[in-house]
Amino acid sequence: MANNKQYHVAVVGVTGAVGQKMLGMLEQIDFPVEKLYPLASKRSAGKTVTFKGESVEIIEATPDAFEGVDIALFSAGGSVSKQLAHEAVQRGAVVVDNTSAFRMDPEVPLVVPEVNPEDIQKHKGIIANPNCSTIQMVVALEPIRQKYGLNRVIVSTYQSVSGAGNDAVEELKDQSQALLNGEDPETNILPVKSEPNHYPIAFNALPQIDVFEDNHYTFEEMKMINETKKIMHDSELKVAATCVRLPFFYSHAESIYIEIDGDDISIEDLQNTLKDQPGVVLEDDINNQVYPTPLSAEGKTDVFVGRIRKDLDVANGFHFWVVSDNLLKGAAWNSVQIAQQLIQQPGGLK
Amino acid sequence: MANNKQYHVAVVGVTGAVGQKMLGMLEQIDFPVEKLYPLASKRSAGKTVTFKGESVEIIEATPDAFEGVDIALFSAGGSVSKQLAHEAVQRGAVVVDNTSAFRMDPEVPLVVPEVNPEDIQKHKGIIANPNCSTIQMVVALEPIRQKYGLNRVIVSTYQSVSGAGNDAVEELKDQSQALLNGEDPETNILPVKSEPNHYPIAFNALPQIDVFEDNHYTFEEMKMINETKKIMHDSELKVAATCVRLPFFYSHAESIYIEIDGDDISIEDLQNTLKDQPGVVLEDDINNQVYPTPLSAEGKTDVFVGRIRKDLDVANGFHFWVVSDNLLKGAAWNSVQIAQQLIQQPGGLK
Repeated sequence: MANNKQYHVAVVGVTGAVGQKMLGMLEQIDFPVEKLYPLASKRSAGKTVTFKGESVEIIEATPDAFEGVDIALFSAGGSVSKQLAHEAVQRGAVVVDNTSAFRMDPEVPLVVPEVNPEDIQKHKGIIANPNCSTIQMVVALEPIRQKYGLNRVIVSTYQSVSGAGNDAVEELKDQSQALLNGEDPETNILPVKSEPNHYPIAFNALPQIDVFEDNHYTFEEMKMINETKKIMHDSELKVAATCVRLPFFYSHAESIYIEIDGDDISIEDLQNTLKDQPGVVLEDDINNQVYPTPLSAEGKTDVFVGRIRKDLDVANGFHFWVVSDNLLKGAAWNSVQIAQQLIQQPGGLK
Repeated sequence: MANNKQYHVAVVGVTGAVGQKMLGMLEQIDFPVEKLYPLASKRSAGKTVTFKGESVEIIEATPDAFEGVDIALFSAGGSVSKQLAHEAVQRGAVVVDNTSAFRMDPEVPLVVPEVNPEDIQKHKGIIANPNCSTIQMVVALEPIRQKYGLNRVIVSTYQSVSGAGNDAVEELKDQSQALLNGEDPETNILPVKSEPNHYPIAFNALPQIDVFEDNHYTFEEMKMINETKKIMHDSELKVAATCVRLPFFYSHAESIYIEIDGDDISIEDLQNTLKDQPGVVLEDDINNQVYPTPLSAEGKTDVFVGRIRKDLDVANGFHFWVVSDNLLKGAAWNSVQIAQQLIQQPGGLK
């Protein structure tokens, strides 16, 4: 890092699945944290978190809790962000928000550092972190788009329960054990905690992530569609998504179809385009059964790409399979990367 | 049924996951079985199966075991079918083969009774039952194709372990319990028993079903592509598939994108087209979170369709979600339906 400045860093929602991973990522890259502000709901205030081997007391997330904070990483749900992000900005913090609260706000940059790092500089206090399933897709697509252009994306997702929080992780464990014991599973969380109906996720697949919109797409599907266009600055890009929750704990996988410019591109061309990109790991060797899976990607910060195939009918069409840890690159790591770029800007954090 | 004729019916591979379901389907529709021939490998000979409340001894599947058989339902793997199907035909049986051995043979009809029942009459002794993931897709697509035409299909599958046999079902149970106990899972069966590498399926997703072909598609993917064109008698139809094995026991689900003729078709038009079709059940009511899942389809013979959406960019494009029990409509029930149609033909079985 260019200077030795240390920062006051708040993590809002520090007890959640993503908040915990944010602490881990800050530690892992040795982010210059002078003082950590672990913020959470009143219920968790007074408990402690461990950061760099030290126990730090959790503070209730109130407007005044942001006094003195330089960078605030938010991941406590959209309503908390709507309530407190501007309060933090007013007190001088730059907010990196990992909820859907501001993502489509034209005044707020929506950033994946491998794709549109230049947008960070346009911030007016808040920078939005995209949805987990969007991030891993655009990281894999951007090198292809840069080299060959990109006209169309059709994605079907295979998403882990951790995207719905720690309660959903526990629910999958409990339901799995119940069904293995021949008992009826309790259903309280998935597909969407706030919705009237809950269905078993253990040994099942639920084609609903988040609530339904009027156009019959879910909000999760519309996030993938709208966020991809915003991040790539291409409102004409055709994007369609089907989002499905599945019984694994961590990582999301995606079956992606794309149409690019040019009809004489080979599988090897795409493999070569992806293999040396920052943040991308090519795992595509069918002769040795090499391809990414949710378990193989768990705990890693990269986006893994495999199963690259040429469409058999459409000359400019390709299919592939993308996997990444939804809590890391899909959330905590992307947020910490944004924070890292913020402090590395010429002139530092501003 | 038009006549009271009773038949000698062989089930080859009677101890397998599909063979067991074939017995169940024959019982359920009260198929006119005069004598059941439960055939299996030498290893199982002498054991018994229960059929209509009676215990019947399993016989080793040899050429002579087909003497006197009218209809032989094969589901013991492609090599057994290649070895014994013609032997059964030579001895006077009509074979309904649920393996990939003869599916693409131009002399062998490939039949889904809701789609191309007329092809049954073209048989020369063998009728092939399509791959499980193909069957449920074409049942859902055919009414749309009949009404609106069909130009393009892109499918991503969510397939249960029972498609890989009883061993894979046990492996998922054992691995799930091991992982819940914090132990390492044993990997012996999936993704493909005969391949060198095995990976955990519990709490994971494996983007490999069957072996890889030279074009980087798996054999399962190529089955979906080629069989769909053959069943629909449309070699020009564009079909692409990505097949993924997932940690649930029964039913396959599919995220399907189609392009039809005409760009002023509504979601309601497609719902109305599907809702009264034989073998199809529309479960598509987003206001009440109604959509099919693998658990909800388990044990049922229908194909369930939900999540119908219009593509947001391509006027003649639609997305939807199709689920069916892979061992029933995907295998045993489709085979028994073919047998049922065979004996109901004018003139009966011939």
